Amino acid sequence: MIAPKKFMLITLGEELLLGLTRNGHLTYIGDQLRQRGVTLHSNYTISDEGDDILDQFEFCWKRADVLITTGGLGPTVDDRTKEAVAEALGENLVFDDGVLDAIKERFERIGKPMSDNNRKQAFRPESAEIIPNSRGTAPGLWLNKGGKILIMLPGPPNELEPMFANQVIPKLEALQCIEDQENYLQLRTIGVGESQLETDFQPLFDKYEGLQVAYCAHQGQVDFRISYPGTENRMDQLLEIAETCKKQLGDQFLSLGHHSVSEVISNMLKARSKKLALAESCTGGLIANTFTDIPGSSEFFLGGIVSYNNNAKQDLLDVPEEMIQQHTEVSQEVAIAMASGAAEKFESDYALSVTGYAGPTGGTPENPVGTVYIGLHSPRGIWAKRFQWKASRASIKTRALNAALDLLRRELIAANISDADANLDIRKEAKSILRSLS
Amino acid sequence: MIAPKKFMLITLGEELLLGLTRNGHLTYIGDQLRQRGVTLHSNYTISDEGDDILDQFEFCWKRADVLITTGGLGPTVDDRTKEAVAEALGENLVFDDGVLDAIKERFERIGKPMSDNNRKQAFRPESAEIIPNSRGTAPGLWLNKGGKILIMLPGPPNELEPMFANQVIPKLEALQCIEDQENYLQLRTIGVGESQLETDFQPLFDKYEGLQVAYCAHQGQVDFRISYPGTENRMDQLLEIAETCKKQLGDQFLSLGHHSVSEVISNMLKARSKKLALAESCTGGLIANTFTDIPGSSEFFLGGIVSYNNNAKQDLLDVPEEMIQQHTEVSQEVAIAMASGAAEKFESDYALSVTGYAGPTGGTPENPVGTVYIGLHSPRGIWAKRFQWKASRASIKTRALNAALDLLRRELIAANISDADANLDIRKEAKSILRSLS
Repeated sequence: MIAPKKFMLITLGEELLLGLTRNGHLTYIGDQLRQRGVTLHSNYTISDEGDDILDQFEFCWKRADVLITTGGLGPTVDDRTKEAVAEALGENLVFDDGVLDAIKERFERIGKPMSDNNRKQAFRPESAEIIPNSRGTAPGLWLNKGGKILIMLPGPPNELEPMFANQVIPKLEALQCIEDQENYLQLRTIGVGESQLETDFQPLFDKYEGLQVAYCAHQGQVDFRISYPGTENRMDQLLEIAETCKKQLGDQFLSLGHHSVSEVISNMLKARSKKLALAESCTGGLIANTFTDIPGSSEFFLGGIVSYNNNAKQDLLDVPEEMIQQHTEVSQEVAIAMASGAAEKFESDYALSVTGYAGPTGGTPENPVGTVYIGLHSPRGIWAKRFQWKASRASIKTRALNAALDLLRRELIAANISDADANLDIRKEAKSILRSLS
Repeated sequence: MIAPKKFMLITLGEELLLGLTRNGHLTYIGDQLRQRGVTLHSNYTISDEGDDILDQFEFCWKRADVLITTGGLGPTVDDRTKEAVAEALGENLVFDDGVLDAIKERFERIGKPMSDNNRKQAFRPESAEIIPNSRGTAPGLWLNKGGKILIMLPGPPNELEPMFANQVIPKLEALQCIEDQENYLQLRTIGVGESQLETDFQPLFDKYEGLQVAYCAHQGQVDFRISYPGTENRMDQLLEIAETCKKQLGDQFLSLGHHSVSEVISNMLKARSKKLALAESCTGGLIANTFTDIPGSSEFFLGGIVSYNNNAKQDLLDVPEEMIQQHTEVSQEVAIAMASGAAEKFESDYALSVTGYAGPTGGTPENPVGTVYIGLHSPRGIWAKRFQWKASRASIKTRALNAALDLLRRELIAANISDADANLDIRKEAKSILRSLS
């Protein structure tokens, strides 16, 4: 067992604090480290003010074994990270001719003139090593000092991510700062609340000494992670506990590991060679986008129609005009006709449809904003279900997505898909997760 | 001018550090405060470990005027925020009968039994005031002590967001901790690099003493924000500078404020009463989803076809089978036929189409993964453009989205849409932004 190192992350950028950009670096780096048995200790988001960078750097440098910074390496005057870090470490900034050459070469390759301010990016603290940047002008920096490691990465995600995966991770591996698998086992559940879940499972967890459990609830779904912190890897024991939980959960069990509902459905459909089509009104392409985020989705996903107005519902999905007049476009009848139309047009086995009022305006007294009908065409029949939420437009779209996916998932389970077909064997699934990480 | 207060935010949750969930609280709270003239000073993301909470709370409580915490108020054993905070403040936790009654009532209303662990949520530090939670069981807490304010909010976004907007913001307003408008002016540009932008504009900015400029680059788009930090509001001066920048930028100027490309297009289309349709292959619904995120998008967006397989391209968009055989489905010809088919099926004025290889597998020697053709049907003609990116599947989808939107935006500008129609008058736009915030 490798002695666990304390990893800390400083993300620089006023745009994060102003709510203009999401902190994607935290998600990406946290995820990468998690897959290698490391839980990031903490993340500090601060602005580009020189004094604040200095203060925060000194605070973290005292406490961390491995400190990662992102951002502030760009060419403009508000990029001050290197200056602040050099000052804190008592180092000079030296000019690196190799870096300048790489920047010049990059500009030549893309056929644009180099601005003079790009020269700034060729400076580095004297004891820092360069991490070449294949996607941009700012190189990363690696520095060993007093038994600690400092890793400075550029801000743009398309530069940071390949640099981290291809250059930083192998170096951390070589230094035995990271492991080759997760320490956790995560179980995802759907359709059961957080407090109910704890009530149901705490008696089981209490039987295992040293077992740690963490819950995380998000929009109709609750995940829980089990681990034995501070011990050697006890994955076999964790898998045994997971097996018990899965049996107890029944169809409220979603997945082991990090598979989303759409991935679980994707695996089920692929295992059965079944095809899916969509007819989306108020979700407006969100469900199609979710499925097409999955690599290889063309194996089971045929396509969809975003019928945002009634003509499209009639012309492209063959929803009868009289039906819309009689029941309105937000009704059980239209949801069923849309699902049926999509299945026919795409010649699919399954089809999901969504029609509703996402708001903020619209709706009727019987079907106010937040009312959504979800239709499902399956080889076993066709039906629709009514939902109602009091939430923002974005949240109603997300909830309708989750509800539609869960409706399809439960139908796929009910349609007698055996465990083996659906790839639900927990040990097999876990092994394939572990293999994909190694 | 109100003396600026230092706002700090602690976001609790191991799931953030493990990269399992995005830090949406930072984005939401940062955005809300920015709209009211406050730049969040810093954000600390830590796990639910009691000792870490205590350390971080003491660090922040010394430095902040207003400290906000999110998460850790749930019913389960790993929710420890109140305990740690009470210890740091030297307060007892007292049981609040009113809170228990509200929780009981909530469970009755939704017709589920209350778990015993929910009783935990009725405890509060003795000097804390309750902020009622209309969407969940964990109330928020408000505490004034030693001239400082502590605001503790529950983790689930659908509980936190209405609580913050409807209860916390009005209290902060009444205490004059926030203002009624932004201190910044943001200009968004498209098609010009960050270093080029600084080279072009720094001479202009240097003329204005005390002016602060910050740049933020993201996937083909660079924003810059101008402000006079530490002075009274000088919005008139900022608008004058913005006007000069806009003229110099020409069609590289995207918007003033925070409007995205899709919102800019939406305003242009609505002003001209023109309609849009889509035919998406490799973006798989992403463009439709982006437009339908805009409230009122049904005014200009008719719908789209996600033609993920070739049958759908032929049957639903009338792309000739021979064309696909001769040129493959990823070609200029097919992109044009898709745009044309979408315009016809939906009877739209404009239609965008996207066909390409998002990867990670697929592609041909001539058109490797990352090759994307974007077609545009406009009343002035129909054409397609080839793009190629070396990036991840998700990033290729996003870049194709941005490229498609910018193609349409430039066509709408070129199609002689006057400034007045397109709502590009900078003062009018700024006034409407400011009005929407008041």
